[in-house]
Amino acid sequence: MGVFGEASEMSRHTNEIAAAIAHLKVALGPVITENATLRENHSHGESYHAPAAPDAVCFPRMTEDVVEIMRASATFGVPVIPFGAGSSLEGHVHALRGGLSIDLTQMNKILRLSQEDMDVTVEAGVTRLQLGKALRNTGLMFPVDPGADATIGGMAATRASGTTTVRYGTMRENVLALKVVLPDGTVTTTGTRARKSSAGYDLTRLFVGSEGTLGVITEVTLRLHPVPEAVAAAVCTFDLLQGAVDTVIAVIQLGLRVARIELLDAQQLDAINKYSKTNYPLAPTLFFEFHGDHDRHVAEQAETVQSLAAERGGHGFEWATKLEERDRLWHARHNALYASLALRPGSRAWTTDVCVPISRLAECIIATAEDNKKAPFPVCMVGHAGDGNFHMLYVLDPNSASELEAAKRLNDRLVDRALTMDGTCTGEHGVGSGKMASLVKEHGTGVDVMRAIKRALDPDNRMNPGKVVDL
Amino acid sequence: MGVFGEASEMSRHTNEIAAAIAHLKVALGPVITENATLRENHSHGESYHAPAAPDAVCFPRMTEDVVEIMRASATFGVPVIPFGAGSSLEGHVHALRGGLSIDLTQMNKILRLSQEDMDVTVEAGVTRLQLGKALRNTGLMFPVDPGADATIGGMAATRASGTTTVRYGTMRENVLALKVVLPDGTVTTTGTRARKSSAGYDLTRLFVGSEGTLGVITEVTLRLHPVPEAVAAAVCTFDLLQGAVDTVIAVIQLGLRVARIELLDAQQLDAINKYSKTNYPLAPTLFFEFHGDHDRHVAEQAETVQSLAAERGGHGFEWATKLEERDRLWHARHNALYASLALRPGSRAWTTDVCVPISRLAECIIATAEDNKKAPFPVCMVGHAGDGNFHMLYVLDPNSASELEAAKRLNDRLVDRALTMDGTCTGEHGVGSGKMASLVKEHGTGVDVMRAIKRALDPDNRMNPGKVVDL
Repeated sequence: MGVFGEASEMSRHTNEIAAAIAHLKVALGPVITENATLRENHSHGESYHAPAAPDAVCFPRMTEDVVEIMRASATFGVPVIPFGAGSSLEGHVHALRGGLSIDLTQMNKILRLSQEDMDVTVEAGVTRLQLGKALRNTGLMFPVDPGADATIGGMAATRASGTTTVRYGTMRENVLALKVVLPDGTVTTTGTRARKSSAGYDLTRLFVGSEGTLGVITEVTLRLHPVPEAVAAAVCTFDLLQGAVDTVIAVIQLGLRVARIELLDAQQLDAINKYSKTNYPLAPTLFFEFHGDHDRHVAEQAETVQSLAAERGGHGFEWATKLEERDRLWHARHNALYASLALRPGSRAWTTDVCVPISRLAECIIATAEDNKKAPFPVCMVGHAGDGNFHMLYVLDPNSASELEAAKRLNDRLVDRALTMDGTCTGEHGVGSGKMASLVKEHGTGVDVMRAIKRALDPDNRMNPGKVVDL
Repeated sequence: MGVFGEASEMSRHTNEIAAAIAHLKVALGPVITENATLRENHSHGESYHAPAAPDAVCFPRMTEDVVEIMRASATFGVPVIPFGAGSSLEGHVHALRGGLSIDLTQMNKILRLSQEDMDVTVEAGVTRLQLGKALRNTGLMFPVDPGADATIGGMAATRASGTTTVRYGTMRENVLALKVVLPDGTVTTTGTRARKSSAGYDLTRLFVGSEGTLGVITEVTLRLHPVPEAVAAAVCTFDLLQGAVDTVIAVIQLGLRVARIELLDAQQLDAINKYSKTNYPLAPTLFFEFHGDHDRHVAEQAETVQSLAAERGGHGFEWATKLEERDRLWHARHNALYASLALRPGSRAWTTDVCVPISRLAECIIATAEDNKKAPFPVCMVGHAGDGNFHMLYVLDPNSASELEAAKRLNDRLVDRALTMDGTCTGEHGVGSGKMASLVKEHGTGVDVMRAIKRALDPDNRMNPGKVVDL
């Protein structure tokens, strides 16, 4: 199985799959469908990976439906692939060996909300924006923001993070507990609503980031955070990338309550200017967001950051407290991917995702940008600089084998560079099928530990096979 | 096995253990000892559990020594028990089935410190206070504070937390990576220095809190935090416990940067007043600590908290920014355990550890205090109220079977109450041998998942057997 198109449908309608589908049609009725369009819709995420359609798609309405599906999977030995919003980037949801796609989007109820405890329990198919809407007027928010309107279940399954991680953490820090259906159909709850616990192995953190390879997440209990009293955004341009990164390091060392620090390069700003009709200077640029107790406090933070930036070659510092100005800025940032794709009609993005210690960030980006000069396609860069995580967007022709080959070569070099710098091959997009070789490079003997866990919990390798670790 | 004294030395000097010791004496020389005093020192933690001595104690000087020990353990089928400062409270380090205690305290080097990246790598035997000393003058601190001067390896192994968790998180949030020696002697590193990663199963979080039952932690890479520019402490007394807890909820909902919120009851304050020569009123009391960017900012926070407390029946609000005043306050708080023990010479403490959603905290404490009226020993209460975690200290005669029986009954009721409230049986002390039955009550089918993981990684059950889950 692999990156360039040989994704398999070989198992379509084996006897086992036919029997499982027939069984589930009786047991669950319209919850399961073989509709060709729906199968096609569930054959891919948002990445360059070649699609691979499941044999059928299930739309469970409740955990008990998932139990029924998992029991059929066990009885007939059929693979299952949990599916949320389909916004993943490493081939996570592709049915590489056929089987049943389990689409959780019909399970989209907010089950419980506690303002006093600042937590909420949602079904896995609730999306990020849906949750944000439900929290309006509560004074609370769920800050993890990967950009896409992903499902909360998918975000948990891939250990998602994004622009606000520098302050609020990733899904790892913000999931209190999960309800999970195990490969044999057993339902388990991985934690309680206690804010912390030392009760045994950390099953919550084991399933967060397991990418559907150990069980199906059906409910998620999340920590919420108070909506800050005051928010400000700022933009600052630098002549040199090193100055921008040094500013980030200084800001974090001062312990300022910065909620976002995003780094964009000239090529990315050019794409954004064209797409969003903005006119940012074409140079390394930081986008900031500050959260504070009151306006004066965020103003002080912005002023401190301005002087830190100025000492490091930053100029054109502009800051905004008005909602519409802030929205315009973050709207432009959020559209970075679409802006990049618009540089080249018909293109798809291959998005790299390394994360390195911040002290190595400038060096890593500069060496990579040097490599990218040879790329046969445009390359844009956006980074969650406060975390040391950045993305090179290769804007490529998905039908060009030579471009895909060039992208693979560049990405491999980047991953190797990040690992040399004691970084990781994937900061937030996960392994899927796309980063399995990188995972081995990064973790070495750790992959054997992962495989032992996989074998212990899913000995038949029915849970999203061909992803993360294979048996 | 169990709580009341029948801890076993039955395996002392079986042929296998004799062979393992003989082998290691040749391979590692003075690293291993059968000295009776040292064996006795390694037979217990700081809890009421009956001691159980190992057959020998090893003092590895480096990871390679641990590898040699684990290979001998595998070859001869001998249990090993990792040992740090011996400050654990649930029987974690007791050699219930004999074997080799692995004392990591000779591995006490700070291996690497990065001020730019705000992280540090230490050997497992470095203690909390030693690390604090090494960080002096760096502008950085490691905030996790369980009270005892535990080793960093032990703190990672038990997922320790403490007074500052409300702001800085537990070991779960502050460990970036571990070096672990697996049961067969393989060395693995669970993560990189990247601030976040979605590269496969979260092995770091699996070993954090695994209590030596899956491998031996030999190195820990930690996140550090900037030392706050300004710090203030405050004390406030309440007529009713409910008012104190409501104040905590209001403070957290406002998003104030409170670094500590500790709740003490009248009995505990009485013990503290006697022990530390203080004169706190004997009523429910909150101790606060605020961290901020400058004095004015912490002053504003203290004033906000004062008015929130006053609206909820708080009075006698006093706050202190001077280091010596703050130290006196936190010194008194830190000595709560010793103050309690001083109420009754010759006593030992049985320390409960439930953690519940904060909205249920007052109800849980009040019902428990009602139960405690029947206790045949003094009971003091301290709580990390911001997390919903509190400890009842049963100050008991460890030689009295009836007192131990009464303590067990009270603790069982408390655990059941916490679980009914969607809390956990142990917020920060871990499972050890003392909470294994509670773990089953809390996790149900989740314990089968834990057992499957244990079996996958330690099929011979040589790693700290009789703790967390047993095979």
